Amino acid sequence: MASGAALTVPVYRIKGDSESPSVYIQANMHGAEVQGNAVIFQLLEILKDTHIKGNITLVPYANPVGCNHKNGEYTLGRFDPITGVNWNRMYHFDEQLIETFIAEFAGQPDVEIEQVFKQRLLASIDQKLDHNHFGLTTGQRIAYQLQRLAHEADLVLDLHTGPISSKHLYCPEYAQASASYFNIPHTILIPNGFDGALDEATFCPWWTLQEKLQEIGSSFSITSKLVNKESFTVELGSQEQIDLDEAYQDALSILTYLQHKNIVEKPLLKPKKLTRYACYLKNYKAFYSPMGGMVDYLAEFGKPLPAGESLVQILRMDNYGDGDPLHQITLEHEVLPILHFASASVNQGTELYKVFTKYFVM
Amino acid sequence: MASGAALTVPVYRIKGDSESPSVYIQANMHGAEVQGNAVIFQLLEILKDTHIKGNITLVPYANPVGCNHKNGEYTLGRFDPITGVNWNRMYHFDEQLIETFIAEFAGQPDVEIEQVFKQRLLASIDQKLDHNHFGLTTGQRIAYQLQRLAHEADLVLDLHTGPISSKHLYCPEYAQASASYFNIPHTILIPNGFDGALDEATFCPWWTLQEKLQEIGSSFSITSKLVNKESFTVELGSQEQIDLDEAYQDALSILTYLQHKNIVEKPLLKPKKLTRYACYLKNYKAFYSPMGGMVDYLAEFGKPLPAGESLVQILRMDNYGDGDPLHQITLEHEVLPILHFASASVNQGTELYKVFTKYFVM
Amino acid sequence: MASGAALTVPVYRIKGDSESPSVYIQANMHGAEVQGNAVIFQLLEILKDTHIKGNITLVPYANPVGCNHKNGEYTLGRFDPITGVNWNRMYHFDEQLIETFIAEFAGQPDVEIEQVFKQRLLASIDQKLDHNHFGLTTGQRIAYQLQRLAHEADLVLDLHTGPISSKHLYCPEYAQASASYFNIPHTILIPNGFDGALDEATFCPWWTLQEKLQEIGSSFSITSKLVNKESFTVELGSQEQIDLDEAYQDALSILTYLQHKNIVEKPLLKPKKLTRYACYLKNYKAFYSPMGGMVDYLAEFGKPLPAGESLVQILRMDNYGDGDPLHQITLEHEVLPILHFASASVNQGTELYKVFTKYFVM
Amino acid sequence: MASGAALTVPVYRIKGDSESPSVYIQANMHGAEVQGNAVIFQLLEILKDTHIKGNITLVPYANPVGCNHKNGEYTLGRFDPITGVNWNRMYHFDEQLIETFIAEFAGQPDVEIEQVFKQRLLASIDQKLDHNHFGLTTGQRIAYQLQRLAHEADLVLDLHTGPISSKHLYCPEYAQASASYFNIPHTILIPNGFDGALDEATFCPWWTLQEKLQEIGSSFSITSKLVNKESFTVELGSQEQIDLDEAYQDALSILTYLQHKNIVEKPLLKPKKLTRYACYLKNYKAFYSPMGGMVDYLAEFGKPLPAGESLVQILRMDNYGDGDPLHQITLEHEVLPILHFASASVNQGTELYKVFTKYFVM
Repeated sequence: MASGAALTVPVYRIKGDSESPSVYIQANMHGAEVQGNAVIFQLLEILKDTHIKGNITLVPYANPVGCNHKNGEYTLGRFDPITGVNWNRMYHFDEQLIETFIAEFAGQPDVEIEQVFKQRLLASIDQKLDHNHFGLTTGQRIAYQLQRLAHEADLVLDLHTGPISSKHLYCPEYAQASASYFNIPHTILIPNGFDGALDEATFCPWWTLQEKLQEIGSSFSITSKLVNKESFTVELGSQEQIDLDEAYQDALSILTYLQHKNIVEKPLLKPKKLTRYACYLKNYKAFYSPMGGMVDYLAEFGKPLPAGESLVQILRMDNYGDGDPLHQITLEHEVLPILHFASASVNQGTELYKVFTKYFVM
Repeated sequence: MASGAALTVPVYRIKGDSESPSVYIQANMHGAEVQGNAVIFQLLEILKDTHIKGNITLVPYANPVGCNHKNGEYTLGRFDPITGVNWNRMYHFDEQLIETFIAEFAGQPDVEIEQVFKQRLLASIDQKLDHNHFGLTTGQRIAYQLQRLAHEADLVLDLHTGPISSKHLYCPEYAQASASYFNIPHTILIPNGFDGALDEATFCPWWTLQEKLQEIGSSFSITSKLVNKESFTVELGSQEQIDLDEAYQDALSILTYLQHKNIVEKPLLKPKKLTRYACYLKNYKAFYSPMGGMVDYLAEFGKPLPAGESLVQILRMDNYGDGDPLHQITLEHEVLPILHFASASVNQGTELYKVFTKYFVM
Repeated sequence: MASGAALTVPVYRIKGDSESPSVYIQANMHGAEVQGNAVIFQLLEILKDTHIKGNITLVPYANPVGCNHKNGEYTLGRFDPITGVNWNRMYHFDEQLIETFIAEFAGQPDVEIEQVFKQRLLASIDQKLDHNHFGLTTGQRIAYQLQRLAHEADLVLDLHTGPISSKHLYCPEYAQASASYFNIPHTILIPNGFDGALDEATFCPWWTLQEKLQEIGSSFSITSKLVNKESFTVELGSQEQIDLDEAYQDALSILTYLQHKNIVEKPLLKPKKLTRYACYLKNYKAFYSPMGGMVDYLAEFGKPLPAGESLVQILRMDNYGDGDPLHQITLEHEVLPILHFASASVNQGTELYKVFTKYFVM
Repeated sequence: MASGAALTVPVYRIKGDSESPSVYIQANMHGAEVQGNAVIFQLLEILKDTHIKGNITLVPYANPVGCNHKNGEYTLGRFDPITGVNWNRMYHFDEQLIETFIAEFAGQPDVEIEQVFKQRLLASIDQKLDHNHFGLTTGQRIAYQLQRLAHEADLVLDLHTGPISSKHLYCPEYAQASASYFNIPHTILIPNGFDGALDEATFCPWWTLQEKLQEIGSSFSITSKLVNKESFTVELGSQEQIDLDEAYQDALSILTYLQHKNIVEKPLLKPKKLTRYACYLKNYKAFYSPMGGMVDYLAEFGKPLPAGESLVQILRMDNYGDGDPLHQITLEHEVLPILHFASASVNQGTELYKVFTKYFVM
């Protein structure tokens, strides 16, 4: 910090007693997205009485700079206040690493590929942390330190929230089957494209490795029991809120997935029965305000909004008397509303809603 | 504005057709408190079909600088970002004016006192606006221009909201009877003390005038039909939200009061039946956080919280393992929670809740 | 902090070896006003080789919340971002304490009055810190903890800076003679009025005590060698800057004063020869911008600006073509410019300059 | 704006009387970078008495949202406060457009290529502005409207400033010869890579067109008298300042370039004699702080800093007594400092300086 005080991040490590996959769970990379800390608290409480088979690492308050970036009553902390770069867009992925690795290790047994490639990913991060003559940005340093912990694990869960939001899950397309183990009604299926986030930074190298190995005839599979790599961004609802009861439910949802992956043994948890909607990332759309004004957010999350029904109504008192003071905003096709902006007061061009289009039931 | 663009405020004036009192209603003096604009919209819509007997002036977006003071996703706008002064603490009240006036007009008929004193209040504001060699602060200029409009009216309603809040009303002690005409369950009764807000700036001069005249034997009364001066701060609920349906209900609540004051004639509105709690301003207390952490706000608004029950629980993950990670915070006496802070993430000393203590049913 | 991390403040205590007065020096109560930390660094370095006769307590980074209140590239930290209250307006002064004390101790020897009254001031702060059922605000807690350290000392120096500023000194009227020992060309003489700042919070109780004792015939004097109480706010120049060479000069300036007060013995320092201007607080005026626009600050600090010469010129490109795009702003009387606003881009009503009017050479 | 008020941008158009190239000049795309407005003012004043041969379009206050994004005393406005995206990274460039165009127009005369390609660029922007079902972000709408004006011109000057900064120029590598007509001592030579800025958005399409045409044997040249396309980002010094005298000098510098391009005829201006340093973009490096603390910026702009000499010294009072409180930070190779951060108070990882490495005299 500016006063020189070091900001540290608490890391909780729980050792498993068998060969099960290992897990990395972090929360609060964005300053206002605090509910994940409560979920980690409830996970730790439940795990006290649980037989644990795979190593579990948990990191609440992952980004101490973002957590403490308050302005007025609110927490900002979505991006570095100096550079504007989103804290969750500064992780590292070097595609060249994979080319080099394959040149050297193609044809080796899967078990060796898995182990050595993991070491290479860790070494690549270590190099970013250590050998930067001109230094690292604040966000890179934070991101790389967390990414180092994440690369040590097989399964990665990054706990976020939306602004005002339903629960939803970012899931790599290849891991769609796992999405059904979370008690989350909305899943966004993401392709193998790196855009800087932690989930991508941890699954894209493996997915790319698999693609390139399969191109040359290997049967290496990241969904195999041996390799078993998955990463998710879990969106827990709305930001700026802590609810310990809801956090308990979300902890159970995560444990259901971990039990499915054989990391925790009991209690026997089954995923909740609920309609799980999915859409591909390219069909997950933001709607930007066509005008400045005061917004009454009408569309409910998770309830299909028919074409022609009002998504929002926008109040423009400056138009009262000599114009239209109340604008109904509709869309041309049915959508499934997932989240909306946190304030009623918007500029032209503010992202009002994010919605599923061309969605389907999983 | 910095770019030189002038920011103007829309003013709607509706003429009444009789000698009824006049009303001034403004909204959005604090940037994030936008719901009042929707209430003014609904009032204007209803008044189109209503017989209006007293003049009504309505000012939405009263503070264009505050309205446009966004930071990150949120609107700030509680105080001037340069000086830190609350936008609703810059109105003007000059007690000396009253001394001078009484020296001159004591013994005159009430009707003359009412008229001339109102002119003096207006002249006093005009003087502040015009004769300042070294200029006025941004907030003084805005406040004085609004106060000029308010002094022209008999009844003043300043529409605000809390952060996350129940509906409540600031009402001068002498006007307690009027509070029952609003559909608002919580009333704070305020004494004759000027602290800079618009309600005080408009009722304190009249209340002080009455007190000083009565000291010298006059029967001048500001609750008399002839003088009839009242001012309220109406807290409509939570900030950063617009809800047009709720605004319609609040417009009816205000119309019920205006009908009681004989300013609008129909429809015949009756105040809702609900338990109306009140407490004196000195018993309206803020509770400050005893520690930094993540707050789960447990106490419900408007529901008495018994002594010893948790107001909030505070999560301190940094204490997990070697301390107490979850703190239950209780109070020693029963309170009635009215509003709470807008973020879960707080420093030591942040105001968590405001509560009624020693409250009673009106 | 929100993440639960405790923010602590470093306190350096140097013991003197005689009965000389004790000193308290703090810096950086406002977040952007960092140069005082460098001055404390240079003081500590010089004091290593200096014979020290009175106790010296030094507190850099006095306000860790303000220090870390960054927004964008800049540090804010002039007021609590949640409440808007200036961090340097939350100290405590209870005039009633003096009445009670005098009722009990009038007529006692000065030495006892000095000792017991100091204990009462400390006890009053302890009580504020300990017995607040509903808690303390963030700023009160910080202020009271610092004030406790300050009340233990006889002489108090609170190191601040202006926005873009010359060096200047706030000095109580009774201590005017001491102002000449600082190498500071501009002194504001302040009366016995408490407005919440640390200097006032530490000298006003003693000054009031002296006044009330003298009213009843005592010769108790706070400028006597026995009592010897003085407090200053030292404005070191502009905010958002650290300059260690300049800090060394300012450290020498402070040591010159401390040597005059017999707290440090060597080296033999003499105040610099420079014209020292003073004005009374009531004549220290802020000039508020008559319009929004882009400001070219023309008047130099410390150089008398004749009536009619431009203080600033304001560019209004929106008026280019159909108005006056460049406005020269002048004053009707000569002034001495002391500081100006930190940005070129201002709203109507922004404080542009602070100037001495009716100033004189000390 | 949130209150519904429309923010408009002033556009000044001056018609030339011959076939000379046309020019587009804008300022203040980033909120705090206001000096360009003063330069446009001085340009307009000088052009009143100048024979003008090419059309000139000037846009001060180009980004009204950024201009009015104040926080505390300072203007932020480097990026959209909601999304974090840099306002100068939202322009549009569609490489596919060029492929399509060449398929159709390869082999046509240069004059037709120039005219039709310009129309295509404009049409591409119009399409972005008009056909977005889900809307545009605030920044896209602003950027596209400005880009439309810029594509109409041959030469584009985007006036910016650094935080605390020397004057410097971003110049496409192919236009290096033109850099010598500006009175600017430091030039960054940028390759044909689009990163979202206005200069790139206007020269990259033409440069790419030239490259692809030359690949298939055309002699089409964007530096020919017929085509003549150049774009520069002109960095005028430090942000948050207006200086009309300096602006006059910068206006002369720009006029010297415009005269060289035959757009204005008199007065006869010659570029100033000064050492002009240049470096390639890849060698223009940012130095990030290795620690949090208070920074004394030591290195002077434009003066080579030898290897091993202090760039900055960082004060860490928290280390006083039990660590090293003052850290000298040096580099391993000589650099030419160009700009530094605007605040003394930094986090670990804050960009402290930007410097030329491997620079040379032009």
